[in-house]
Amino acid sequence: MPLSPDQQAEIDALRSESQPTLRATVPGMEAHLYKAHEVLDHGFIRVIDYMGDDAAICQAARVSYGKGTKSVQNDEGLIRYLMRHWHSTPFEMCEIKLHVKLPVFVARQWIRHRTANVNEYSARYSILDREFYIPAPEHINAQSTVNNQGRGGLLEGEEAARVLEILKADSSRAYDHYQEMISDEGQDGLARELARMNLPANVYTQWYWKVDLHNLFHFLRLRADAHAQYEIRVYADAICKVVADWVPAAYGAFEDYRLGGATLSGKALDCLRRMLKGETVTQENSGMSKGEWREFEGVLNAPV
Amino acid sequence: MPLSPDQQAEIDALRSESQPTLRATVPGMEAHLYKAHEVLDHGFIRVIDYMGDDAAICQAARVSYGKGTKSVQNDEGLIRYLMRHWHSTPFEMCEIKLHVKLPVFVARQWIRHRTANVNEYSARYSILDREFYIPAPEHINAQSTVNNQGRGGLLEGEEAARVLEILKADSSRAYDHYQEMISDEGQDGLARELARMNLPANVYTQWYWKVDLHNLFHFLRLRADAHAQYEIRVYADAICKVVADWVPAAYGAFEDYRLGGATLSGKALDCLRRMLKGETVTQENSGMSKGEWREFEGVLNAPV
Amino acid sequence: MPLSPDQQAEIDALRSESQPTLRATVPGMEAHLYKAHEVLDHGFIRVIDYMGDDAAICQAARVSYGKGTKSVQNDEGLIRYLMRHWHSTPFEMCEIKLHVKLPVFVARQWIRHRTANVNEYSARYSILDREFYIPAPEHINAQSTVNNQGRGGLLEGEEAARVLEILKADSSRAYDHYQEMISDEGQDGLARELARMNLPANVYTQWYWKVDLHNLFHFLRLRADAHAQYEIRVYADAICKVVADWVPAAYGAFEDYRLGGATLSGKALDCLRRMLKGETVTQENSGMSKGEWREFEGVLNAPV
Amino acid sequence: MPLSPDQQAEIDALRSESQPTLRATVPGMEAHLYKAHEVLDHGFIRVIDYMGDDAAICQAARVSYGKGTKSVQNDEGLIRYLMRHWHSTPFEMCEIKLHVKLPVFVARQWIRHRTANVNEYSARYSILDREFYIPAPEHINAQSTVNNQGRGGLLEGEEAARVLEILKADSSRAYDHYQEMISDEGQDGLARELARMNLPANVYTQWYWKVDLHNLFHFLRLRADAHAQYEIRVYADAICKVVADWVPAAYGAFEDYRLGGATLSGKALDCLRRMLKGETVTQENSGMSKGEWREFEGVLNAPV
Repeated sequence: MPLSPDQQAEIDALRSESQPTLRATVPGMEAHLYKAHEVLDHGFIRVIDYMGDDAAICQAARVSYGKGTKSVQNDEGLIRYLMRHWHSTPFEMCEIKLHVKLPVFVARQWIRHRTANVNEYSARYSILDREFYIPAPEHINAQSTVNNQGRGGLLEGEEAARVLEILKADSSRAYDHYQEMISDEGQDGLARELARMNLPANVYTQWYWKVDLHNLFHFLRLRADAHAQYEIRVYADAICKVVADWVPAAYGAFEDYRLGGATLSGKALDCLRRMLKGETVTQENSGMSKGEWREFEGVLNAPV
Repeated sequence: MPLSPDQQAEIDALRSESQPTLRATVPGMEAHLYKAHEVLDHGFIRVIDYMGDDAAICQAARVSYGKGTKSVQNDEGLIRYLMRHWHSTPFEMCEIKLHVKLPVFVARQWIRHRTANVNEYSARYSILDREFYIPAPEHINAQSTVNNQGRGGLLEGEEAARVLEILKADSSRAYDHYQEMISDEGQDGLARELARMNLPANVYTQWYWKVDLHNLFHFLRLRADAHAQYEIRVYADAICKVVADWVPAAYGAFEDYRLGGATLSGKALDCLRRMLKGETVTQENSGMSKGEWREFEGVLNAPV
Repeated sequence: MPLSPDQQAEIDALRSESQPTLRATVPGMEAHLYKAHEVLDHGFIRVIDYMGDDAAICQAARVSYGKGTKSVQNDEGLIRYLMRHWHSTPFEMCEIKLHVKLPVFVARQWIRHRTANVNEYSARYSILDREFYIPAPEHINAQSTVNNQGRGGLLEGEEAARVLEILKADSSRAYDHYQEMISDEGQDGLARELARMNLPANVYTQWYWKVDLHNLFHFLRLRADAHAQYEIRVYADAICKVVADWVPAAYGAFEDYRLGGATLSGKALDCLRRMLKGETVTQENSGMSKGEWREFEGVLNAPV
Repeated sequence: MPLSPDQQAEIDALRSESQPTLRATVPGMEAHLYKAHEVLDHGFIRVIDYMGDDAAICQAARVSYGKGTKSVQNDEGLIRYLMRHWHSTPFEMCEIKLHVKLPVFVARQWIRHRTANVNEYSARYSILDREFYIPAPEHINAQSTVNNQGRGGLLEGEEAARVLEILKADSSRAYDHYQEMISDEGQDGLARELARMNLPANVYTQWYWKVDLHNLFHFLRLRADAHAQYEIRVYADAICKVVADWVPAAYGAFEDYRLGGATLSGKALDCLRRMLKGETVTQENSGMSKGEWREFEGVLNAPV
C-alpha cells in the first residue's frame, strides 16, 4: 500500500477545498485530482493539475475567439483530422501534471522523454525510504530467446524462488547498510549523496512530471506498447485511463490512429496493393527482409 | 480598438460561466481570464488559461505531499533561493496560455523563443484582416548613431510626416491588392498562400502561445529589457503585469534577481574588490575593453 | 542568379583549403560543402558543415567502441530496423549546418520546426537587399476549391498577368520607400528596425540553420510532402538530394518508411483485413468518415 | 584502468586514418579525437566528433558569407560581447559528441540536462560489466552540517574503512547475484531487463552524448561549480579542458563571464553602490536575508 494515513488525510483535505474558476474544467479529471492510482507494489500516479480539454484543442486549431459554436461531433471530427495528419501543435495546448512514485530503473527509461518538466526527490538532500520493487511471481520471466530486448516464458519453481529471494535479501541488506553509513550516532555519518550509491535500481523514487498532451501521447505510444518493459507499461496504462477521462475525443483518436494503427513502408504498401489485386505475395517476392515481412504479416493477421 | 462587439460579447459570456475546481486557483488571474489588455494600436494579450501558483513552485521544489504547511514568508524565501541559485525546474511547474494579437515583425522576434507551444492564425487557410501597425508619432525614431541595433532621437516635422504617410499608404495599397488578387468575382482568385506574400510586416497576426513560467521569465528578461525593440517590449510589459498578479512571490524574485540584477564578469568583480579597498580603477587598469567598462560603469552608477 | 562574383570567389577559396581530419568524413558531402544549390528565383541552400555518417548512426545504436566490424549490408539493415521501430535517438547523432536564403513567408513556416539552431540576418541591424520572390508563371495557382489550405489550377491570361504585375510593382515600391525612409541624406533617417515593417513577405532573408538528422527527417517528411506549399517544398527537395549523398542508407530508409509509407488507423487496418478476406468494403460499412475513406482509397490506389 | 587492450588498439586504429576535409578543423581537437581521458576509477570521456570552431561562432553572429576577414582579436572581442549579452544562438552553431563512461548515479544527474542527444548502453539488451565506482579515501566525506545538500569533512579511521568495506562488498555481491540470476546454465535465466534492478547506483554505464556549445556551457556552469557533487564535477572539469582546446576564445569568455562571474540582485547592486560611496552596509541595513548577505559577502571577499 503506497499511502500512509497522513498522506491519505492530506489528499482528503485537498479534495475538500473547491474553488470557483473561469477556466476550462473537466468533471472527469476533477474526480481524479490528487487521488493515488496504485501501480506495481509501492508505486502510484496522481493527477496534481491539468490545463485544457478537448475544446481547447479545437480552439487552438481554429485560433478562434472563445469556445466556438461547433457541435461535439464536429469537434471530434476535427480532432481526428488533426491526429491523422500529424498536426501536433493543437494537442500541445493541453497540459497535465502528475505525481509519480516509481522504481529507479523505470525512472531511468521514463526520463529519456525529454520534452517534459520534472522535479525529482533528491537523494543528495533527503533520505530515501525503505521501499523496493519486488516483482510478483507472475512477472518473473526468463530472457527471451528470440528478442534480445525482451522477456520469454515465466520462471518457475526453484529458479523463481531463488530470484525472489535474492532481490529481497539484497535490497534489504543494501538499505540496512545505507542506514548504517548515513547514521550519525557514534560517528560522523556518510554524506547522503555518497551513501545513495549503495542502493539498487529497484528502490523507489518519486517526482512531479508535467507534460503537454502531444508529448504525453508520444510517451504513451512507446510505453503502452506491447514491446515496452512491463514495469513501465503499467504506468502508461494507468495514465491512459486518466487521459481517456480528461480528453475523450483526443484519446479516442489516439487509440485509433496510434495505439491501434500501424505505419507501413512504401514496400509494404506495394505488396498490399498486389495482394488486393489477387496476387500471391510471399517474403521472397516482397522485397522485404525476413524481419520486416514477419512484422508485416503480424499487422495483417491481427485479430479483427 | 482591437475588439469587435462580437468578440466582447464572447468574452463576457466566457467570464460569466464559473465552474468549481479542486485545482490551485489564483483570484488575481481569474480576474484577468479572457479579458483583452490592449497593446499598440490593434494588438492585445489575453490570458486563456493558467496552471499553478507560487505554492506549486514550492511544492515541486519540495516534491512534498500536498500543499505543505509552510507560511507564506517561508515560501517567498524558498522562491528567492531558487531564483538566486538558478534552480529553474520548479518554475517550469507553472504554465500560462495567452492569446496574442501582434504585428508580424514582432511575431518574428517572439517566435525565436523556441520552448513554447504556438498555434498561429494561418494565412494559407484564412484571409487576414485589414489591420496594420502604424507607430504613434512619439515612437518614430531615427536610426541610432551609436548602436547599430537601436533607435536614436525622435523624427520630427516633415520627415516624420512622410514616414507615416508611406507606412499608411503602402499598407493600404498592399491590402487593396491582396483583396483584388484573392477575389473570385469574375476571376478564379489567387491562392491565399500566395497572395499573403504581398502583405508587409506590419500586418497583424494572432496566436495562442503557451509557455512555462521559467521560459516565460527568460522571454521577459530579454524582451522587457531596455535594449529590446519598443514594439515587443510593450507586449513584455503587459505580460509582466499579469505575471505579478499570478505568482507575486516568483515575480518579485524575478524583478530583483533578473530585471533589476546584473551579471558581472570575473574581471569586473576583481575591479569591484579593488575599488572597495579604496583603489582608483579606470578602464586603462581594469583589464576590460572600452565597451565592457562603459557597461560596468552603467551598472555601478545606476540610480539607487 | 543568387550569387555575386564576390560570393562565388569566397566559395571557391573555401573549397580550395583542405585539412586533414580524423573525424568521420563523407566524400559525397565534401563535394557539396559551401556550394550554392539554387532554389526559387533568388534563394539557395548551402552545406556549411556536417557531423557523422551512416556508420555514426549504427555506432550510436550499438554504443560500441569505434566503428565496429559489421558489413555495410548489416549497417543498412540496422538502420532500416531503427527507422521502422521509431528508434530516433541514433539519428540524432548526425548533424548538418545549412546556409539558406529564402523568402520571409517561407521562413515563417520553416521556423515552426523548433528543435534546430538558427541565426538569421538581422533587419534591426542591417539593411535588407532588394530581392523579392516573384513566382514563375507556372506556379501562380488559384485558391483550391476543395481544400481551404491549398492551390487549385493555374491562373491564366489577364488574371495571371495582373497578379504578377501587382507583386512586382508593390515589391519595388515598398523597397523604394524602405530606402527613402532609412536614407540619412538630408534627413535623420528612420531606424532600420522600424523601416523593415514596410517590406512585404516575399522579401528574401537568410540564415544559418543547424539541425540533427532525426529532426531534419521530420522537417522533410512534412515539407517534402505533396501537401506542403510549393515554395517550401522546393527547399525540402533540394535538401533531400543533399541528405541522400550524406547518409545514403538512412535516407533510403526514410524514403521507404516515411516519404513512401503511410500510417493506417486501427479502423483502416480492420477494413484492409476484411478486404484481403474477399469482403467488399465501402465507406458506408467501413466505420470511417468520408474524408478518412477518401484518404484510405488514395493510399490503396496509388500507382505501384 | 578503463581501457582494455582491444579498446586501445581500436582507438589507435581510428587515430591512424586521416582524411582530407573542407570543413572547419581544429588541430587541438584533432589531438583529442577518440582518446580516453580517465575520470574517477573506471570512467572516461572521449571526443568522438566535433563541428565548428571559434570562427564558426562569429560567422553565425555575422551571418556572413564564408569566414570573413576580421582578425583574431576582433573575433575574440565579438565572442566576449556575445557572451556578455547572453546572445546564445551563435554558440549553438558548434556541436560536440562525447563517449562517456560514468557511474549510474552520476548519469542520473547528467541526464537532467535535456537539450542534448543521448544513446546509452542498454541493460535490457546487454549485460553490464563488473565495474563499480568505489571512492578514493580522500573523497569519502561526512554529511555537511550546514548544507543539507553537500559534504562536510573527511571520514576517518574505522568509519571510513567500514564505508569502503560496505561499498565494495555490496557491489561485489550484487554483481555475483546478477550473474547468477541471468545465467542460463542449468536454468532458464532471468530476463536482463529484470536482473539489472539488483545492481546498485555505483555501477558504471556508458553513453554517447552530443550537445551544442551553448548547452554544454550551461552544463559546465552548473556542474563545474564548487557546489556540484564531486563525482560529476570531475567529468565537467575534464570536459572544460577539452573545450579550452576546441574553442579557446569562447572558453575564455565563458571562464570570465560564467565560471568566474556572479549575478547580483537589484538589492545587492544597491548595497554595492552605497558601499562605493563610503557607506557602511551590514546585513541588517541591506534589505537582504542572512543567506543572501552571506553569499554577497562571499562574492566581494573572494581572493583577487
